[in-house]
Amino acid sequence: MKVSDFLKRLLVGRKLASAQLGETLLPKRIALPVFASDALSSVAYAPDEILLTLSLAGMAAFALSWEIALAVAAVMLIVVMSYRQTVHAYPSGGGDYEVATVNLGPNAGLTVASALLVDYVLTVAVSVSSGVQNAKAMFPFLAGNEGWVAALLILVLMSMNLRGVRESGAFFAVPTYAFMVGVLGMTLWGLFRILALGEPLKAPTAGYDVVGTPAYEPFVGLAVVILVARAFSSGCAALTGVEAISNGVPAFREPKSHNAATTLGLLGGISVTMLAGIVALSNLTGLKLIEETGGSHFALNGQAIEVPHETAMGQLARTIFSDFPIGFYFVITATMIILFLAANTAFNGFPVLGSILARDGFLPRALYTRGDRLAFSNGILALAGAAIALVLVFNASVTALIQLYVVGVFVSFTVSQFGMMKHWTRHLKSEKDPKVRTRMQRSRLINAVGLTGTGVVLIIVLASKFIYGAYLAVLAMAFVFALMRSIRNHYTKVARETAVAPSDARMLPSRVRAVIVVMEVNKPTMRAVNFARATRASTIEAVTVSVDEDEVQRIVEQWNAQDTEVALKVIASPYREVTGPILNYVRGLRSDNPRDVVCVYIPEYIVGHWWEQLLHNQTGLILKTRLNFMQGVMVTSVPYQLASSKYALNRARRDSAAAWRQPGRGQVRMGEALDVERTE
Amino acid sequence: MKVSDFLKRLLVGRKLASAQLGETLLPKRIALPVFASDALSSVAYAPDEILLTLSLAGMAAFALSWEIALAVAAVMLIVVMSYRQTVHAYPSGGGDYEVATVNLGPNAGLTVASALLVDYVLTVAVSVSSGVQNAKAMFPFLAGNEGWVAALLILVLMSMNLRGVRESGAFFAVPTYAFMVGVLGMTLWGLFRILALGEPLKAPTAGYDVVGTPAYEPFVGLAVVILVARAFSSGCAALTGVEAISNGVPAFREPKSHNAATTLGLLGGISVTMLAGIVALSNLTGLKLIEETGGSHFALNGQAIEVPHETAMGQLARTIFSDFPIGFYFVITATMIILFLAANTAFNGFPVLGSILARDGFLPRALYTRGDRLAFSNGILALAGAAIALVLVFNASVTALIQLYVVGVFVSFTVSQFGMMKHWTRHLKSEKDPKVRTRMQRSRLINAVGLTGTGVVLIIVLASKFIYGAYLAVLAMAFVFALMRSIRNHYTKVARETAVAPSDARMLPSRVRAVIVVMEVNKPTMRAVNFARATRASTIEAVTVSVDEDEVQRIVEQWNAQDTEVALKVIASPYREVTGPILNYVRGLRSDNPRDVVCVYIPEYIVGHWWEQLLHNQTGLILKTRLNFMQGVMVTSVPYQLASSKYALNRARRDSAAAWRQPGRGQVRMGEALDVERTE
Repeated sequence: MKVSDFLKRLLVGRKLASAQLGETLLPKRIALPVFASDALSSVAYAPDEILLTLSLAGMAAFALSWEIALAVAAVMLIVVMSYRQTVHAYPSGGGDYEVATVNLGPNAGLTVASALLVDYVLTVAVSVSSGVQNAKAMFPFLAGNEGWVAALLILVLMSMNLRGVRESGAFFAVPTYAFMVGVLGMTLWGLFRILALGEPLKAPTAGYDVVGTPAYEPFVGLAVVILVARAFSSGCAALTGVEAISNGVPAFREPKSHNAATTLGLLGGISVTMLAGIVALSNLTGLKLIEETGGSHFALNGQAIEVPHETAMGQLARTIFSDFPIGFYFVITATMIILFLAANTAFNGFPVLGSILARDGFLPRALYTRGDRLAFSNGILALAGAAIALVLVFNASVTALIQLYVVGVFVSFTVSQFGMMKHWTRHLKSEKDPKVRTRMQRSRLINAVGLTGTGVVLIIVLASKFIYGAYLAVLAMAFVFALMRSIRNHYTKVARETAVAPSDARMLPSRVRAVIVVMEVNKPTMRAVNFARATRASTIEAVTVSVDEDEVQRIVEQWNAQDTEVALKVIASPYREVTGPILNYVRGLRSDNPRDVVCVYIPEYIVGHWWEQLLHNQTGLILKTRLNFMQGVMVTSVPYQLASSKYALNRARRDSAAAWRQPGRGQVRMGEALDVERTE
Repeated sequence: MKVSDFLKRLLVGRKLASAQLGETLLPKRIALPVFASDALSSVAYAPDEILLTLSLAGMAAFALSWEIALAVAAVMLIVVMSYRQTVHAYPSGGGDYEVATVNLGPNAGLTVASALLVDYVLTVAVSVSSGVQNAKAMFPFLAGNEGWVAALLILVLMSMNLRGVRESGAFFAVPTYAFMVGVLGMTLWGLFRILALGEPLKAPTAGYDVVGTPAYEPFVGLAVVILVARAFSSGCAALTGVEAISNGVPAFREPKSHNAATTLGLLGGISVTMLAGIVALSNLTGLKLIEETGGSHFALNGQAIEVPHETAMGQLARTIFSDFPIGFYFVITATMIILFLAANTAFNGFPVLGSILARDGFLPRALYTRGDRLAFSNGILALAGAAIALVLVFNASVTALIQLYVVGVFVSFTVSQFGMMKHWTRHLKSEKDPKVRTRMQRSRLINAVGLTGTGVVLIIVLASKFIYGAYLAVLAMAFVFALMRSIRNHYTKVARETAVAPSDARMLPSRVRAVIVVMEVNKPTMRAVNFARATRASTIEAVTVSVDEDEVQRIVEQWNAQDTEVALKVIASPYREVTGPILNYVRGLRSDNPRDVVCVYIPEYIVGHWWEQLLHNQTGLILKTRLNFMQGVMVTSVPYQLASSKYALNRARRDSAAAWRQPGRGQVRMGEALDVERTE
């Protein structure tokens, strides 16, 4: 095997038979982990961010963590309730983009789409960064290189996804359940040791004081409100990913909507329980965190002291499993894996959303079709590139990245809830059955509460985080929005320009004049001649350009030796130019016969390596590019497959086989679900 | 004007009417400066390099500079005599490459070509570097940034040449004669002041001692021989560029050969005089140079002392025109300009040689044709890139670069002289006229002396400089040789593979089956349909792929609304793939009708900006690429010019107009001269 083949194989993966395809609908017990990794994994960093933010006001503020966790749980309840309505109303798995577009129009949909695209990037960046931060509990040597480690992990994810890794339900189920078992087990065991056995468990940071910054130190007034709002906003990161189930309804077993709604409820319950458990244990074990860049610091007996940063998850696992190290390793490993899976979820969702946006003309059409590897590869590369840039710029600091996060999710939530209200209002207009009307009115009320709740949270998030980084997310969304808008405008303009008129079908050219470009008299040229003759054009002529007199004489002699029945014209070229004289000749043919079409036949060498391409076809390429600008001129490439072309053919076959793999994913999100049903 | 247009205009230059073309044959007084800038400019650095090298052996060695200058002058005499024979034997302006190829075969020609290509790069690097070193006499602040300044100057040269700057004879004549007047005037004035007026003129460095390195300090034995050989080798840089006239014979007025031979003699005489003058003045004024990296240094009263480096030209001009500063500025300015012109000469010669090599199949065919901007642009970019790399790596140190230089020139000299000997021997075989035979035998003798002389110098150059850098030049030549060899092999292989057989003209396909790819029903598609119908193929069918049921239904309805008389086939695509199903369909058509040809019509959007290209034609492009690998399938692009395409058309026209300018250059070298005659 050649080295280049080997490298390619390594990156893109081995050829897979299409028989390996196939998809089954998901039972609830598999659907939960498939859709939940994103939502559950945020438990790994949301509590930390609440505590970190509160630390700015010093020790006393930590007492508020309970209230904030409760507020987050309340929002979670509202969001879950609201999305249960969406699941019932859009059993086809509309997703927020569809809900917004259908009910509020394309600009609302595009707003949601921009928010989601930016948030996919942030999901990758935040999840991988949090994974690296948690990994430091097990591998302390990672400290100092977090950014590079995170970038490396994103590269691994990228190549996994470029290879088209097959994720079965089990691939998700095992680590997700392991994470749930680990965190809930840790919570129960911790509560048992503290409350039942009365053990005085203390977190590693329990012994320190936390000194806040002067801005918040007199813990009163507006400053408190602002700080609590910020802590709450960061805590709302726990809600990201909840919407995933509403996109995946078609992947559920029947009754789809019912099962999806139940799973959504389960997900909300588990998520809130885990969040509450971690906050409770943090309070009970005296766990403390500081925000170093913000200005709070640890102190011991009034002296500032340096303590290596460790996540809440890491500290709790260390404390609660102090006599059972396997438990510690289990929890940390499961946390790292689920964060990695959450990032992987974005790698699936991003290109799928891209495909839907391409369908609607907001992204290049080429991204629409599925089997084409192109679509997914480009999406994956774009996502990985943006996420790597973020983790490097912010050195994989979850605290810094979280300031940009959450904005997109709540934009999406809010617009979607508004769309749902419109949805019910519209249906209520035509619905007569009073029982159905009552149900719809109830749903509308729930979505109204959802809209109010998520809208208020969005305002809080924007207000409290704007200067800390949320403005970057808003700028990115605006940029993506404007870009997609202008792509759509371009397509609309082109569609108007190219719309068929009734007369188009009757504008038949009267004749076709075939012109064969002859550079040399060889098999490719003779093939072009034979093909041109087979088309029975009205006139067929071959043209060659006289660049060198000896050469042209040789060509003419060789031509005459062939029994082609096609005359060869020699065009003079005093300046040794090739394309200009041919273009002029074709231009002349056209203007002499304005109702005819000219078809230029160019023999093309099909080669196997990129460098061979540099040695052939260059003149033909320039000629073709220039001819394309002439009205009424077609260009026909007559390919001649050189022996070396088999390399390229094999390469193309391999790529294509890999691309075939793409639709067969277990991880289903957004419109992807459509195929799942169809391929049953 | 848009910014991008403005930048492009700035770089590539404004549109030029082809009426500005035209060429006249050169009288001797113009031909001399046109062809001499390269050869004469080396006077600016060759004496320096002799003195620098000798400085390694300390003060005493400088006395040898006279002998070395005489030896260089002797070699110059031999080379000029030899090339006068070439000028008479090849009045068509063969050049060393032609002489070697015709008389010694393609490998010898290729050796010369490799040597010349590498030497063009070095001419640019050395000339510009020397220009920067000399400029330091006027602009001392350049010291320390020589590499960057040189790189910048090469960029200026590059964009001048990409713009297709028009160099009239006057463009060369003024600075070349100014340089000759300056240097010869300075020599005469200096000799007059010293010898006639008896003024004790002392160079700025006259007062210092030079301490050599221990390796050469006891100035005896083999070490002396080696050092003198190195100094001589560096001095031979004065000979570079002498061969230029032999390439340009056709550009001379009648009698061409006679005038060219006279000019060659003049050039040799002037060059040797200038070299001798500078060495004489250096000796008389006590001028000293040191090679800092080599280990020699200045000393004052036995103490090592730091003296800023100044070229011999700079020191002499400063000393001799001590009471006439205008003279100083005149000499230095003329020196800088002629060095710049010498570098520019390479920018003309490199692509012309590339064109000749492309004609013979050693470089991509696309580089052959002239008018095509491509050929020249690529050559200019390659040359500039390589030269910039050299000046940056060697920080524009002439002393370092000169170690790589000269090798190529003498390879070319030696092989060419050997070719000339073969030339005379061959002609002597058939020549009967005793008078002509005598003349031929005399010419052969001169070329034999030339071969011996240049061969010995080549050996001296290689032996004395190999470890100091000449090995790099040899490696580069070997690489270029191998590259061109393998390109030629590729073309030969392809030519064998594609050679016509007598039966090729009779292998007519029985039928043409037209397949129109329909993505949407719009004007481009209808144009493709109409064109396909006009070709009167045996069968015509339109195919579309069912990616989305609603969409395909809309397409079918729109299709039926059009009165096309062509049936639309819908191909199922369960995995939302587009290219695969079409490829399979065409493959099926082919295998069902193996004697027929399939012609696939793809509507192509012609757009005006590169980013629009990303939004269109992607699927068509993939389809075309894959179809090209199928035997018996033609692909016809039916272009549809969108309104925006006029931008690209205007751009293409502008480029093309600029390209037309290229042949009209006053600077003629190598095969370029062919056109000069023809365009009279």
